[in-house]
Amino acid sequence: MAKFQLNILGCGSATPARHLPTSQIIDFRDKLFMIDCGEGAQLAMRRMRLKFSRLNHIFLSHLHGDHCFGLPGLLSTLALHQKEGIVTIHTFKEGAEIFGKILDFFCRDTSFEIKFNIIDENSGIIYEDDALTVETFPLYHRVPCVGFIFREKPKLRHLRGDMVKFYNVPIKELHNLKCGADFITPDGKVVANERLTTAADPAMSYAYCSDTIFDTRVAKAVKGVDVIYHEATYTDEYAAKARDRGHATASEAARIAQMAGASRLILGHYSKRYLDEKTHLEEAGAIFPNVTAANEGMKIDIL
Amino acid sequence: MAKFQLNILGCGSATPARHLPTSQIIDFRDKLFMIDCGEGAQLAMRRMRLKFSRLNHIFLSHLHGDHCFGLPGLLSTLALHQKEGIVTIHTFKEGAEIFGKILDFFCRDTSFEIKFNIIDENSGIIYEDDALTVETFPLYHRVPCVGFIFREKPKLRHLRGDMVKFYNVPIKELHNLKCGADFITPDGKVVANERLTTAADPAMSYAYCSDTIFDTRVAKAVKGVDVIYHEATYTDEYAAKARDRGHATASEAARIAQMAGASRLILGHYSKRYLDEKTHLEEAGAIFPNVTAANEGMKIDIL
Repeated sequence: MAKFQLNILGCGSATPARHLPTSQIIDFRDKLFMIDCGEGAQLAMRRMRLKFSRLNHIFLSHLHGDHCFGLPGLLSTLALHQKEGIVTIHTFKEGAEIFGKILDFFCRDTSFEIKFNIIDENSGIIYEDDALTVETFPLYHRVPCVGFIFREKPKLRHLRGDMVKFYNVPIKELHNLKCGADFITPDGKVVANERLTTAADPAMSYAYCSDTIFDTRVAKAVKGVDVIYHEATYTDEYAAKARDRGHATASEAARIAQMAGASRLILGHYSKRYLDEKTHLEEAGAIFPNVTAANEGMKIDIL
Repeated sequence: MAKFQLNILGCGSATPARHLPTSQIIDFRDKLFMIDCGEGAQLAMRRMRLKFSRLNHIFLSHLHGDHCFGLPGLLSTLALHQKEGIVTIHTFKEGAEIFGKILDFFCRDTSFEIKFNIIDENSGIIYEDDALTVETFPLYHRVPCVGFIFREKPKLRHLRGDMVKFYNVPIKELHNLKCGADFITPDGKVVANERLTTAADPAMSYAYCSDTIFDTRVAKAVKGVDVIYHEATYTDEYAAKARDRGHATASEAARIAQMAGASRLILGHYSKRYLDEKTHLEEAGAIFPNVTAANEGMKIDIL
């Protein structure tokens, strides 16, 4: 199966301590996509053996330091590694301005081009290639903030080798079969596609929801997504504090996953007050059973 | 003995890998002084149990990212810890400008005041309290760069309890004795200070030399300093590359320590090409025996 894997570089909140600040990498086939870039992200990438040369897109959800202070160091390191091509940073206008100034000063003469793609709080596709789209949707935090949905495009059907051979299908027809076309034999007979192929693997999707309060509009935005990461800064005990600070609890994350009909929920962005994530898992698990507490170094297949 | 201790937070060069980028803390009695602030410095401080509340001065040697990209994250964390008082950042004019902009954007409403003390490439005292001075001196790198010398002020002589008692010295006279004054008894007899006190502990000094090429002017500037940290990005094999990149080798660091008459040399700022510091130590040790290769987490008493 083609690779679609979430890598947790950091899953803590504001102050790095037991956890690093937030950063993730989606490893999608031959490309890496970074979501948020907290301090230490470059080192975490290296530890997880994710190659700098494969990284060309960085998505910043919002402009709080724990989600972006690793950016200047990462880009400096890419330059030292003689990276080539274009690195696109998807961020709000203010992010492009402030990081633009920093990079102008510290990262002159990089071996690669740095581009900013200005995003806003509206929903919309901000990246597309032949196999994947990335779209934004609004989150509800203390400052403008968006989540990201990574959607695999529909995949090709699998050829049935025995049948393809039996009907002597020429090589130039194979791609059409994978796309669902029937095969017409030289003597005009129609062979139904279902006889020659089996169903494509399902196209999977991943949604990143951090930072945000609990809001049913988030559930609506990520409806039908397979795997959801939702911030769970606090446990039930601090539900009021969560709302006050623009954050969510583990239970609230679970309710979003449940409402959205997800198959799996990943929790993260834990407050440093917690020594482990047992309570987060208990509270979320009571509402939505297939829940995982993110941890640095974790690799999760999106399937 | 009063505390004067060097803490190594990071001792790597440009790209964090086996070592973190450069940062050190001088733990001097009740105060912490940070020298350079590479990415990850705040986390390293926490790991070494150096309290944020004791840190009020940060000295930046030059404006390369591996020496200052940890600053925004550190200051954000200080704010989250409700730190009070003033934090002074000693840096070049351009550093104050660029970090001023970053902090204006990301660290509004801090609980403490951030001040910039603008330094330049000349030598001079930039910090002084009743027990310590910090002075700059020029280094020779690709961009403007200074080193820092931490000098303890002369200490007080030690009272000889038995003699103080024998001569019935009144309490109000004790400080004068510690400063070297003789004691005059009520009947006019002069008791020489040497009978009442023993010599003060020596006032120690520490010099930080990074980043720089090998230059005899550096040895002159740190002449007489007890403990010298000197960058040793490379070993002899890469001496030409060192000069070309504005850096020094371990042997060159040793020659500086030797010329300056230091008692101890600390090496650091290793290129990531090295898997360990064996060769650095061998090459430097052949010239200057009392040499230590810095490593993260190391605490070195300046004595």
